[in-house]
Amino acid sequence: MRQITAVLISLTLVLQAADTPASLRGYSQRSAASEIEWETKFRAIPQQDRLRENMRRLTARPHHLGSPYDKDNAEWILAQLKSWGLDAKIEVFDTLFPTPLERSLELLEPIKYTAKLEEPALPEDPTSNQKSEQLPTYNAYSIDGDVTGPVVYVNYGTQADYEQLLRMGVSVSRAIVLVRYGGSWRGIKPKLAAEHGAIGCLIYSDPHDDGSPRGDEYPKGPMRPAFGVQRGSVMDMPVYPGDPQTPGVGATPDAKKIPLNEVTTLTKIPVMPISYEDALPMLKNLSGDVVPENWRGNLPITYHVGGPGPAKAHLHLKFSWDRKPLYDVVARIPGSKYPDEWVIRGNHHDGWVNGAEDPVSGTSPELEEARGLAELVKQGWKPDRTIIYCFWDGEEPGLLGSTEWAETHAAELKQHAVAYINSDGNSRGLFRAGGSHSLENFVNGVMKDVTDPETGMTVWKRARLVDISRATPEKRAEIRSRADSRISALGSGSDYTVFIDHLGIASLDVGYGGEDESGGQYHSIYDDFYYYTHFMDTDFAYGRMLAETAGTMMMRLADADVLPFQFTALADTVHTYVTELKKLATDQRTEIKEKNTEIDDGTFAALADPKKKMVPPVKVPVPPYVNFAPLDNAADELSRAAEGYEKALAAAGDRAPASLNAKLIQSERLLTDPAGLPNRPWFEHLIYAPGFYTGYGVKTIPGVREAIEEKHPAEIEQQMVRAAQALQREADLLDSATSELAAASR
Amino acid sequence: MRQITAVLISLTLVLQAADTPASLRGYSQRSAASEIEWETKFRAIPQQDRLRENMRRLTARPHHLGSPYDKDNAEWILAQLKSWGLDAKIEVFDTLFPTPLERSLELLEPIKYTAKLEEPALPEDPTSNQKSEQLPTYNAYSIDGDVTGPVVYVNYGTQADYEQLLRMGVSVSRAIVLVRYGGSWRGIKPKLAAEHGAIGCLIYSDPHDDGSPRGDEYPKGPMRPAFGVQRGSVMDMPVYPGDPQTPGVGATPDAKKIPLNEVTTLTKIPVMPISYEDALPMLKNLSGDVVPENWRGNLPITYHVGGPGPAKAHLHLKFSWDRKPLYDVVARIPGSKYPDEWVIRGNHHDGWVNGAEDPVSGTSPELEEARGLAELVKQGWKPDRTIIYCFWDGEEPGLLGSTEWAETHAAELKQHAVAYINSDGNSRGLFRAGGSHSLENFVNGVMKDVTDPETGMTVWKRARLVDISRATPEKRAEIRSRADSRISALGSGSDYTVFIDHLGIASLDVGYGGEDESGGQYHSIYDDFYYYTHFMDTDFAYGRMLAETAGTMMMRLADADVLPFQFTALADTVHTYVTELKKLATDQRTEIKEKNTEIDDGTFAALADPKKKMVPPVKVPVPPYVNFAPLDNAADELSRAAEGYEKALAAAGDRAPASLNAKLIQSERLLTDPAGLPNRPWFEHLIYAPGFYTGYGVKTIPGVREAIEEKHPAEIEQQMVRAAQALQREADLLDSATSELAAASR
Repeated sequence: MRQITAVLISLTLVLQAADTPASLRGYSQRSAASEIEWETKFRAIPQQDRLRENMRRLTARPHHLGSPYDKDNAEWILAQLKSWGLDAKIEVFDTLFPTPLERSLELLEPIKYTAKLEEPALPEDPTSNQKSEQLPTYNAYSIDGDVTGPVVYVNYGTQADYEQLLRMGVSVSRAIVLVRYGGSWRGIKPKLAAEHGAIGCLIYSDPHDDGSPRGDEYPKGPMRPAFGVQRGSVMDMPVYPGDPQTPGVGATPDAKKIPLNEVTTLTKIPVMPISYEDALPMLKNLSGDVVPENWRGNLPITYHVGGPGPAKAHLHLKFSWDRKPLYDVVARIPGSKYPDEWVIRGNHHDGWVNGAEDPVSGTSPELEEARGLAELVKQGWKPDRTIIYCFWDGEEPGLLGSTEWAETHAAELKQHAVAYINSDGNSRGLFRAGGSHSLENFVNGVMKDVTDPETGMTVWKRARLVDISRATPEKRAEIRSRADSRISALGSGSDYTVFIDHLGIASLDVGYGGEDESGGQYHSIYDDFYYYTHFMDTDFAYGRMLAETAGTMMMRLADADVLPFQFTALADTVHTYVTELKKLATDQRTEIKEKNTEIDDGTFAALADPKKKMVPPVKVPVPPYVNFAPLDNAADELSRAAEGYEKALAAAGDRAPASLNAKLIQSERLLTDPAGLPNRPWFEHLIYAPGFYTGYGVKTIPGVREAIEEKHPAEIEQQMVRAAQALQREADLLDSATSELAAASR
Repeated sequence: MRQITAVLISLTLVLQAADTPASLRGYSQRSAASEIEWETKFRAIPQQDRLRENMRRLTARPHHLGSPYDKDNAEWILAQLKSWGLDAKIEVFDTLFPTPLERSLELLEPIKYTAKLEEPALPEDPTSNQKSEQLPTYNAYSIDGDVTGPVVYVNYGTQADYEQLLRMGVSVSRAIVLVRYGGSWRGIKPKLAAEHGAIGCLIYSDPHDDGSPRGDEYPKGPMRPAFGVQRGSVMDMPVYPGDPQTPGVGATPDAKKIPLNEVTTLTKIPVMPISYEDALPMLKNLSGDVVPENWRGNLPITYHVGGPGPAKAHLHLKFSWDRKPLYDVVARIPGSKYPDEWVIRGNHHDGWVNGAEDPVSGTSPELEEARGLAELVKQGWKPDRTIIYCFWDGEEPGLLGSTEWAETHAAELKQHAVAYINSDGNSRGLFRAGGSHSLENFVNGVMKDVTDPETGMTVWKRARLVDISRATPEKRAEIRSRADSRISALGSGSDYTVFIDHLGIASLDVGYGGEDESGGQYHSIYDDFYYYTHFMDTDFAYGRMLAETAGTMMMRLADADVLPFQFTALADTVHTYVTELKKLATDQRTEIKEKNTEIDDGTFAALADPKKKMVPPVKVPVPPYVNFAPLDNAADELSRAAEGYEKALAAAGDRAPASLNAKLIQSERLLTDPAGLPNRPWFEHLIYAPGFYTGYGVKTIPGVREAIEEKHPAEIEQQMVRAAQALQREADLLDSATSELAAASR
């Protein structure tokens, strides 16, 4: 009996498999079958051993922009690509990249302390002693400075923190602010500090945010040790990223460089990152009130704001303002049918020091992807579209390599680029994607075709189940009701920025992570091979997953008959943004009204504790109601058009014409406007942007959202009209695609 | 001009004052005018200097139960009361009170460490060196024990924490649990630890909960220092408080004592409190997974659960199981009209060591109240009802003084007691009251007649404005819509317990606080005069407020023509409890269903990280729907009857008969049931009780609530019927009072 049942089951499975036609969005039945076969072959290629050896090689020495090993790595990557038969080259740009000449920080009062500003070599960690090649601990694009002043602790240094300081009666004017990493992108910290009158800014890593509370300190565990320092750029990237001296154009030899004193993306005050050991003598010597609960770090002290002071510090910074060459490695597999349609992939190769997690845990899989595709080409695979693999240099200082390359090739890219797929640091856990919502359905499709190595589930199922288990009841119901899992919107922080925000190229940022406490050695000398292979994706199982997943995405975009953009997800997402914006305006109005009422009622007198310094808030005007109809109408138009396109596409089936792709390629471009966002024209996308005061964090429908947040009522309506026009353009494009499909179906 | 305006204003004020007739609930117009005059006189009497000197005297030496100075204080209080002309006496009871003979704790593995178990004297603090009289650091009513086992860190040691441990695959069987203070009453920690198989329990004070994050460590600031230890009782008071050997009856010489081995309120395992310095060597030597985020304390280490172990500890405890005499001081002002109607006030006088904040910051104002009332009597004031002032001994070990006194006088109290007003530690800030909701309106009335010294607002207005500013928008709207501010329900933790929970006497617990970080020296040798006068209510302005407020309450209850109970607030509050219970049942059902679905869906496989020990949860039966109709009907009945009574009372006006008071005095009694709560018959109140697994925290409609929480569906309906019957009894009483009023109005 048992055997017969088994046979019957096998037979049923076979019949089912045969019954289910190969199906991939944008593929005819026949091309789908071929594609699935090639993709399956591809996914068998990446090897964990090779991922490990790639990392060992690329992280063997410090490889920051301008360093000998950075160039050496670029040349090695190039040689690898060529050895696999790929058409590859290095494109060189030269960009402003300041490095420290002098760095000093002393506590002058009430005790003397000279900050070490140095991460010590550790005997366990074999590359931590490469002192002569390591970049010192600093923040790139800080201005030079020599300042002395009282110290004030300002928590994360966000706008809300300065409002709290105001309530506590503490001014940072002429002070050196001591701010902790976290809560906002680091570049926002000196920006806001300067806006509030500070003369210097010290950013330290509190254990609360990447230290002992989360895990043991390195090298016992993965978390940042007492003298660990987070380097990093403080360029004002929300204004424009890339070479500060060539905004909007490629930093080619003949590009006009604006003089240093006209550059707007340097900081206004000197800023330096320090360890918590160097911060502690200052924190211990601050007076004034005890900080509010959400300002507390995890050092074994009582955090005080500072009177300001009595801690008084002297900060001295001097940089060499040189231009350095950067080496982008670019490989191309020409498209056999549509060579002028480009699918682009990128991950940076430069690190702050040895850079294992950031970025080589992403670079190494990208190399394996390239090797895999090269292998397929040898086996006879001919992608329909041109595939471009980029290995960016100079991402760390300011997205330099990607920005300068994309600005240089802007005209071609606007014409040819189908999509850009980015990755960066990668580790164990769930797959996460952010990006253009027209690719949400596409991402879900690929997630269903790759298998998580720890659970044996599809990556899609694992992420979905975990999301459900962590969601609120409302969100849980929403996740279960949607066929696709949502992808997030992109802010900034990696090389996709120029593609999506400046050029309007549909983009994705992808990667695995979440299981290991990451970030502990972020931008430190300890983010190296030893660290990564002891505490992160130690067997490179998820490095392999990244190669499999991103490689499959590249192939599937390259070979589709009709590009698999789907716009109902975009429309649905835009509706959620409009709902959010309305809520934001309503909540802001309600909150201001409530605060004003409380001020009138004497609430702040009731709250005042005579033992504490407290400044009552003042009444502010209640923002007027604004007209959301343009956005509502445009979002509805987009929904209607997106649904129309879906129906027409389904009706057309295999008759859908390839001519459609020219329209689809332009779909993301239509969401941009060459005039850009208010005060930062480089950012042309009207649906996604990094926040002017968040830096990395996304602001969706940014013109409208930031106008509400910053309380500029007139600008809200202006920006609403612009965003609505972009959505209407998108709807018109879809209507025209629908007509084309209808014609083809006849 | 200016002068004339001033005159006009004064005139207007005078006219307004004359226009507004004196109005106090329960008072005829004439008696109200007299009452207001006497109350105003009373409130001018308490003196901050005297409050300070009272504290200096009462805290000069350690005065725990059984100590020489405890008796000395009682005798001094008695002498004071007598010197003011009051009829006062000491009532002596003898009760079980174990004190340590041997205490030792050693870390045996992986390093050796012998715990200090000692709070050092500090040069700044003049009474901290009274070593020969200080009780050592210990938990009273821990059993003797000599245990050795691996250490496991269990966070606050709540039921939820043990569920988390189970998920993490860690057992505490045969282990010594290391638990931090906070999150639940301390007595619950060894109780749950024993239920889960632990053999010993160490409770330490993590800085997170009362240390450096909140303020500087003592003596620089008010927070608990490295070697500070929180003493405290671990008697299983949710079963019954008071002398463990005389449950339910007064510990008089002829009372039958049950043998020690039959006592149910001792711990099942040895337990001892320690400082964080003594805990640190253990915490540093635990292995196993890093704790979840809400388990992290603020020590500069990574918190691990323990494998269990590798830390292995040896705990040895031996107590002297003596009975000690306790000295309750009781003063009486006989009632001139209704001597058999008693209004009772109490605050304990014993401390764990010098006990300044706990309890003398409350005892001292209570003494000033008594002096004030004695002064009024000399001036000719004759309270209508008998006023009783109690100064309890032995509160700290287990509410001994109040419980034994009230059990001894139970029959009289049930007949005569109108209300009991309790206080305990007091400090700067807002007035807070908890207690019988039939007194909510009364409390609001008094709050409107006392003036906050920091803001000049009425205490009522200050508390209300602050509550509004801190509330959610929904709660804010509710606060604004209600004429009265809500009072909270009472759990346990001070001397009101026997009055409200066992005898059904309407009770209030009142006090000021919230502005200073309190609790830092709670139950430590440093809770003394130096500490209190440097960091708490340093000028006794709020000590004076407590005396003014509680004294006014006593007078107003003692003199009312008709007792100012008001039942619409009770009915409204009961409705909120019923709503909460329904939500609790629904949420529990939804959550279990969701968890079961997730288990079926494989969510826990998706969540599993192979690098961590994780045990998947198992499906549990979904609790059935239960019949809430009895409670709904009874709550509605109560509302109807309470509104009827209000209308009838308003209609009767000054014709309301004093005979009504006999009914009103019984109103709280009707909410009790002599059969008590399941498994703890001593607790007779069916609307309020401390939680069986929270200890101090209140559970309202406790029979029903705990049956839902503990998932006993059959018991839910049984308890619902009992609670409904109590509410119906209350409604019937009110209907009968309404009839009496109607008859009098005719």
